Amino acid sequence: MYVTDNTQRPVASLPGLVHRTLAGRADGLARLSLWRQTIAPGGATPIHRHDCEEVVLVDRGEGELVVDGVAHRFGADCTLVIPRNAEHQIVNTGGEPLECTAAFSVSPVAVYLPDGQPLPLPWES
Amino acid sequence: MYVTDNTQRPVASLPGLVHRTLAGRADGLARLSLWRQTIAPGGATPIHRHDCEEVVLVDRGEGELVVDGVAHRFGADCTLVIPRNAEHQIVNTGGEPLECTAAFSVSPVAVYLPDGQPLPLPWES
Repeated sequence: MYVTDNTQRPVASLPGLVHRTLAGRADGLARLSLWRQTIAPGGATPIHRHDCEEVVLVDRGEGELVVDGVAHRFGADCTLVIPRNAEHQIVNTGGEPLECTAAFSVSPVAVYLPDGQPLPLPWES
Repeated sequence: MYVTDNTQRPVASLPGLVHRTLAGRADGLARLSLWRQTIAPGGATPIHRHDCEEVVLVDRGEGELVVDGVAHRFGADCTLVIPRNAEHQIVNTGGEPLECTAAFSVSPVAVYLPDGQPLPLPWES
């Protein structure tokens, strides 16, 4: 399956966050995953890290990328680069939904909390 | 540099195609590259392949992904998955610009023509 309609992808969620996996292991990929997420105003990802590289494309909205406790502001049409194992969080500081597409350098993607424990995800990655 | 404004990225081009590298080696990445390209109506990428995985997000427009000589139609809000070393071409078959964002599982990204020769690129990847 070379072409997939994104609207047909399963939808999952975490508090304040709606998720679709656009591409990953189920598509035969081992070194790429693509996720699209919408974070509600006032919402945020958990503080977490990945043992892979991550790039986030900001499609709409504004917010802060917090890396190792330091906040970096961003708006729409920005790109965020998150180094492997950097502890980070994405926060919607604006009044509209924050829409992002994230690319990861592995599939599946593991998420680790600050205490080192893996965060079980309610979606296939 | 964790946050970059995409509009500040250098612009490069091939015939009928405008390119911006959104993230890559210059950002400290080794296993991820993100490119954004606009293909004019009637335009196309060269027929080519990469020795890495590729996922293309179709942001606007419509076209065909030709893989090993077989055409697969797509529209906006589709995702294209291109296996490592699959010979492919993206063609804008519509009447408006085709806007895509491509993710690759390495940085820099090498492009090979059907005769096996590398295609020199006018941009940093």
